[in-house]
Amino acid sequence: MNNQSSQKSTSLPFTVAVTRGPMVESRHQVVAAISDSAGKLVKSWGNVESPVYLRSAIKPLQALPLIESGAADAFGVSEKELSLACASHTGEPLHVEAVTAWLDRIGLGIGDLECGSHWPTYDPAARALAAAGEVPTAAHNNCSGKHTGFLCTAVHLKDQIKGYINLEHPVQRRIKKVLEDFTDLDLSDAPVGIDGCSIPTIGIPLNWAAMAFARFADPAGLDPDRAAACNRLQNAISKYPEMIAGSDRLCTAINGAAKGRVVAKVGAEGVYLAALPEQGIGIAIKAIDGTTRAAEVALGAILDELGILDEDIHRAIDPFVRPVLRNRNDLTVGEIRADLTT
Amino acid sequence: MNNQSSQKSTSLPFTVAVTRGPMVESRHQVVAAISDSAGKLVKSWGNVESPVYLRSAIKPLQALPLIESGAADAFGVSEKELSLACASHTGEPLHVEAVTAWLDRIGLGIGDLECGSHWPTYDPAARALAAAGEVPTAAHNNCSGKHTGFLCTAVHLKDQIKGYINLEHPVQRRIKKVLEDFTDLDLSDAPVGIDGCSIPTIGIPLNWAAMAFARFADPAGLDPDRAAACNRLQNAISKYPEMIAGSDRLCTAINGAAKGRVVAKVGAEGVYLAALPEQGIGIAIKAIDGTTRAAEVALGAILDELGILDEDIHRAIDPFVRPVLRNRNDLTVGEIRADLTT
Repeated sequence: MNNQSSQKSTSLPFTVAVTRGPMVESRHQVVAAISDSAGKLVKSWGNVESPVYLRSAIKPLQALPLIESGAADAFGVSEKELSLACASHTGEPLHVEAVTAWLDRIGLGIGDLECGSHWPTYDPAARALAAAGEVPTAAHNNCSGKHTGFLCTAVHLKDQIKGYINLEHPVQRRIKKVLEDFTDLDLSDAPVGIDGCSIPTIGIPLNWAAMAFARFADPAGLDPDRAAACNRLQNAISKYPEMIAGSDRLCTAINGAAKGRVVAKVGAEGVYLAALPEQGIGIAIKAIDGTTRAAEVALGAILDELGILDEDIHRAIDPFVRPVLRNRNDLTVGEIRADLTT
Repeated sequence: MNNQSSQKSTSLPFTVAVTRGPMVESRHQVVAAISDSAGKLVKSWGNVESPVYLRSAIKPLQALPLIESGAADAFGVSEKELSLACASHTGEPLHVEAVTAWLDRIGLGIGDLECGSHWPTYDPAARALAAAGEVPTAAHNNCSGKHTGFLCTAVHLKDQIKGYINLEHPVQRRIKKVLEDFTDLDLSDAPVGIDGCSIPTIGIPLNWAAMAFARFADPAGLDPDRAAACNRLQNAISKYPEMIAGSDRLCTAINGAAKGRVVAKVGAEGVYLAALPEQGIGIAIKAIDGTTRAAEVALGAILDELGILDEDIHRAIDPFVRPVLRNRNDLTVGEIRADLTT
């Protein structure tokens, strides 16, 4: 049962403003919730009770069955690979090589990935691939690590491989069960969309998403095996942050610099989820307009308000969360800042 | 003097909604004005009286001095080049070659461009460049055509070349004068930012921006030489739409398909300006959050409401203005639609 009281949230979204010279050029509205593991809202902005597709931000929870099923141990899945299983990666060689090797170890190949292919999201990696006369495969898809984790679990549990992306496949049913456990919600009637990589994405209100990440942050109240799995994923992400994203990405910067004090994951369309193990709280962020730049700046501002960020973390993440805008001649032309009071 | 009455606009922005499966995933708010050449608002949404950086959307007006100074005739500037002078192009070979040839004809080179360089915005062009072992020059900058037009004017008028991007340089002072003529505003105290290509971008309210584009659309009330220059630019853009943008771009699709009935130009941070010569009206659009997808869908919806779009134009522009969202496996996952009544 949810412990959160059912009072309607009345606070407003906050603003992330993009300035250029003397004036604000563009404005984003951001909805966010901070919750403890019992579902008590520490703070919220805007309507946090309507469903939001959490997209790739929920990947750390989607990776739990990989460990809980015994698949990770059976196949000797490394911490690097666990971080990769939670990744929206940039398609750099380290990601592609790790996916390829892991698939090989479970007796499958790139052709078994059902995520589709796209050029690496890190432009220099895309250009290097083109310069080598190559084209991207499904291993370059930013979700290929997650899909390989799915396949690893399916192989271990002797599920049918083909169709593992479908809502009714055991892989996706297990994930739905994890999400129901972590949110205390019955998700049978929750809105379901199709994600970029073709798996289902389930609409979950930000208040419960924040609680879910609080439980991930502070799994003491969970079954001991699940708690151990959560800690193992947190450690993997913090130790190998380059695997969860890649070059020039906030997820890599923050998970690396925070050394386990923040475990954060971006999702498409302006979503960020973060777990704060020391405080035992979770943060769920959605930029209403779906822009990543707003979600990143919002995450930095909320962590700042919570007093989480020391100088080292700031140095690593400020280029993303307090960006200075430079133009093609490297002139400073503006900045992006959140104001949590607006 | 502005003929527009000074009553405050009270209408609200309208919404552009991004759906995924059964629910709206993200929402954009859009401010817009439709005006005639006398400044009478046909319709508006939201606050259209606060300054907005029009960014690259104002390029057609920035290109007027190139013609009015006599530079275009003195240097035999072609219609293709005039379209390029109004462009935010994709950095494809046709753009880069045209810029290089034009610079050569005026006795200058790529090193004289002060716009900075960046990889082509059309990804396949960027990858082709990388595959050829090359790196981009200032000619690949999406604004290189505009800058070449500036240089052409400067050479013809014997201005100093170096520093032509600065607010006090004659090139920029001429542009400011054009904008003051078209908006009936004194822009001395207007907010000025630095654009991506380092030239000044001046804050102008959308109501006057729409009037300015109405005057560009229907220049009958202007000085005959200026009217001729406006018509010449309109014809150039409509005849060579590939020069004003490039592959997979709405500006190219709409300026080509509309055959002169719509002359439209995108600007960064969610701006679109459009001139409707047959109706003698102008449209100015700003997505508050700065997203291009919202501005594009908004432009389509407004043109639809005005009854401008026939079947041919729809076919060309619907992929941009009524987009169906497909994922990495080409599955339909959602759509983007404007609702002008919200």
